[in-house]
Amino acid sequence: MDVIGENTFILVYRDRRRKWIVRPGETPRLHTHLGILDCKALVGEPFGITAKTSLNDELVILKPTIEDMILKLTRRTQVIYPKDLGMIMVKCGIHSGSMVLESGTGSGATTALLAYLVMPSGHVFSYEVRGDFQENARKNLARLGLLEFVTLRLSDAKEGFQEKDADAGILDIGDPWEALPSFRRSLRPSGVIAAVTPTTNQAERLVEKMKEERFVAVETIEILMRHLEARSGMTRPSNAMVGHTAYLTFGRKTL
Amino acid sequence: MDVIGENTFILVYRDRRRKWIVRPGETPRLHTHLGILDCKALVGEPFGITAKTSLNDELVILKPTIEDMILKLTRRTQVIYPKDLGMIMVKCGIHSGSMVLESGTGSGATTALLAYLVMPSGHVFSYEVRGDFQENARKNLARLGLLEFVTLRLSDAKEGFQEKDADAGILDIGDPWEALPSFRRSLRPSGVIAAVTPTTNQAERLVEKMKEERFVAVETIEILMRHLEARSGMTRPSNAMVGHTAYLTFGRKTL
Amino acid sequence: MDVIGENTFILVYRDRRRKWIVRPGETPRLHTHLGILDCKALVGEPFGITAKTSLNDELVILKPTIEDMILKLTRRTQVIYPKDLGMIMVKCGIHSGSMVLESGTGSGATTALLAYLVMPSGHVFSYEVRGDFQENARKNLARLGLLEFVTLRLSDAKEGFQEKDADAGILDIGDPWEALPSFRRSLRPSGVIAAVTPTTNQAERLVEKMKEERFVAVETIEILMRHLEARSGMTRPSNAMVGHTAYLTFGRKTL
Amino acid sequence: MDVIGENTFILVYRDRRRKWIVRPGETPRLHTHLGILDCKALVGEPFGITAKTSLNDELVILKPTIEDMILKLTRRTQVIYPKDLGMIMVKCGIHSGSMVLESGTGSGATTALLAYLVMPSGHVFSYEVRGDFQENARKNLARLGLLEFVTLRLSDAKEGFQEKDADAGILDIGDPWEALPSFRRSLRPSGVIAAVTPTTNQAERLVEKMKEERFVAVETIEILMRHLEARSGMTRPSNAMVGHTAYLTFGRKTL
Repeated sequence: MDVIGENTFILVYRDRRRKWIVRPGETPRLHTHLGILDCKALVGEPFGITAKTSLNDELVILKPTIEDMILKLTRRTQVIYPKDLGMIMVKCGIHSGSMVLESGTGSGATTALLAYLVMPSGHVFSYEVRGDFQENARKNLARLGLLEFVTLRLSDAKEGFQEKDADAGILDIGDPWEALPSFRRSLRPSGVIAAVTPTTNQAERLVEKMKEERFVAVETIEILMRHLEARSGMTRPSNAMVGHTAYLTFGRKTL
Repeated sequence: MDVIGENTFILVYRDRRRKWIVRPGETPRLHTHLGILDCKALVGEPFGITAKTSLNDELVILKPTIEDMILKLTRRTQVIYPKDLGMIMVKCGIHSGSMVLESGTGSGATTALLAYLVMPSGHVFSYEVRGDFQENARKNLARLGLLEFVTLRLSDAKEGFQEKDADAGILDIGDPWEALPSFRRSLRPSGVIAAVTPTTNQAERLVEKMKEERFVAVETIEILMRHLEARSGMTRPSNAMVGHTAYLTFGRKTL
Repeated sequence: MDVIGENTFILVYRDRRRKWIVRPGETPRLHTHLGILDCKALVGEPFGITAKTSLNDELVILKPTIEDMILKLTRRTQVIYPKDLGMIMVKCGIHSGSMVLESGTGSGATTALLAYLVMPSGHVFSYEVRGDFQENARKNLARLGLLEFVTLRLSDAKEGFQEKDADAGILDIGDPWEALPSFRRSLRPSGVIAAVTPTTNQAERLVEKMKEERFVAVETIEILMRHLEARSGMTRPSNAMVGHTAYLTFGRKTL
Repeated sequence: MDVIGENTFILVYRDRRRKWIVRPGETPRLHTHLGILDCKALVGEPFGITAKTSLNDELVILKPTIEDMILKLTRRTQVIYPKDLGMIMVKCGIHSGSMVLESGTGSGATTALLAYLVMPSGHVFSYEVRGDFQENARKNLARLGLLEFVTLRLSDAKEGFQEKDADAGILDIGDPWEALPSFRRSLRPSGVIAAVTPTTNQAERLVEKMKEERFVAVETIEILMRHLEARSGMTRPSNAMVGHTAYLTFGRKTL
């Protein structure tokens, strides 16, 4: 059975808004407004247990999912939301063995999900022009144990990829149309690309360029997510809702 | 390079609404209102080529994605939509090596995506009470080459699973609350379940029962998807939109 | 009490999708797939009664609301949806006594609602360049008994309005930015304008021009409407949904 | 021309989030974080002018719309949102001369919009059981100059209305199904009711009861509103969005 180790990430969970991800070795004592949690004492215990704080408050200790890990990375730079990532993964058919190109790396959050899905036999090649972003991403991927499935390149995707015959390409840069020819050259025929852009103007310009570059099955979508507060006799949609994150544009390479 | 074989599925693509999935061996000549396509002649060709019909109309030949394959299965029974599946996969952290429980099997569409993601080292155990559904699902999975990653059981999940320590559980039955104790017993601690229910009443009853069964991080969401018709100077959201598919309820097992 | 007359519009109602608006004098016998309804026999009866068809099917006879009348006009040309009209009316503060400018008249559906709200002491001045549209709108308004509260002008709003100090202006034309200076000159200070445009490009260009013309409180919104199928124990949002009608842009004139 | 008086409400406007409604007589000097505005000095000036604060910041002085006034009342108790009110007004066909029943009065915000639309010849009868709510509503309506079009009754609508043959009825109470028989008795045949309920359970129970009470054209909807941030080359939907306010249920009385 899976037990908590010194270097295992643990999710300390109280509710949707009060949760922490730490490693007992790094954070032997977690200070929260609900009291102090002795994380060191959790080593050797199974996931799923309930632990008490110094104020006698109860917290559940869970194994973080890849979604938890991605959201944890959110605080530093903007990341693609899980609702959008899920759709991208399904539409691009990312799975074990896939070879994926990404530009740019950013915080490495999307890279991490890609690596998690393509491992052990697949690989992610992620291009980034900013050295500080790449360094941060490298640290994030290393901490998640996913670095071996990723090659980080400090280079501009617009100049071209070193790789060939990728199964899929993820574009998360401000001017994705500029990188389209590079992606086209390095994708296998029938390979899928997904681009993430906040504005309608970007989506418009990108779609135009994708048609020029003979991509087909070109479509732009937006994904909205709303919580339902399901409670006996008082069920209602949540007032809190994110109105917009990004448009997702997809296309497939033809010869 | 990936070439088309007799038994390869090919996606014959014209636009979002006019597309077909066939195998050259089974469908040597594809009759469409755009003319007849000689599929036999495509054998040996690479994906991504453009082929002409007897009416001189152009069709693109693509390698179907797992999403294409799932949507193809839609015609027979109701399936979970890609927008919902994507979210489920990310929130449950399904990937290569995962062991997943499913109830029920239905058409096998969700089973297929699960198998596609957990292979080669993971496995899906899918329970179904209707023999005809199971047979249809078996045929679908076999055609997709995914059957070896799935064990289909003709049994009611409410009576219990034979397996233990599953990483995730997917509930796609009308009364998921009845199967919760079975899932609880056969999930590893901290394992995630996802349930798909069309009505608010089901979500309400399920959430209540999940709390009784000490699941945490319980949340119900709905995912809405809308197309953006991105066209130079004329960009607008699509009029056509599916207003509702299902609510997705998630939770994690505690000890 | 309100009774049905020869020239009264009646709403023959079966359900959300099967309903007819007729006048007994014009349509003494209404042929439907549910049988023939003797409308002539309804004269002198109160609204709210149930009548039987020749096939013994029951239909309810209601007094049409202004929304029913607007939707009836939909079949001929595109009209602004009630969900959008409601928001426009509240944001523009249209009520009895208001003086409103409109461009263009179209089918007269919006004009009709405006007239209905401003009467008896207010007035609507509606400009239209196409004579056939204007004639159709005139007929529609006359049939609704609202023509006396409307002045229809066969003229281009971009050339200017004859009127001054209007309380509000409604723009339902393809290039509303071109008519902004006219509206500005003929609105009272602090008067509100509302423009209806399907595309993001139009909204973008309009907002830019509105700021140039020193309108303030400029905002663009979209209104989405979804039905909830509320049924005991089986409540769920409707699958059928209109994904997009138009963006609504508002602004207020400053000196 | 409309000029500002001592007792006129003025909207001091900076942007969507920074705006104030005051009367110069009551608030001769308005203190804001943008400086102090000399409201007294605005008396005699036309609406639409720009005024400077003590910190030399510019504010626009507008005539508040009925929507502004309703939103101003929001701070004290929960009110129906403009997006929902617009739909209610159009679907109920509220206009000059309408006679409307309301239960409960609450802050008087909906009552104010109803009065604004039915005046000068129509009337609103608003029932409320809490004396403190009624007093607050009376003050609000008096300040808006709308009290003469409203009769406020300190009485429970469930016990029955004193009035007969109302054109429309608005239900904004927690258990609207209990008041349905009263509304039914006091509506004219074919009259429309609109109920506002936050939960799906309330909508479900209400719809059931409406069918028992032989209301027809029963439907429940939700209205979602999202801002579009329209900016040259950078247009995108707003991140900020209210996910849910209330379900609106409509029906019409049959005999």
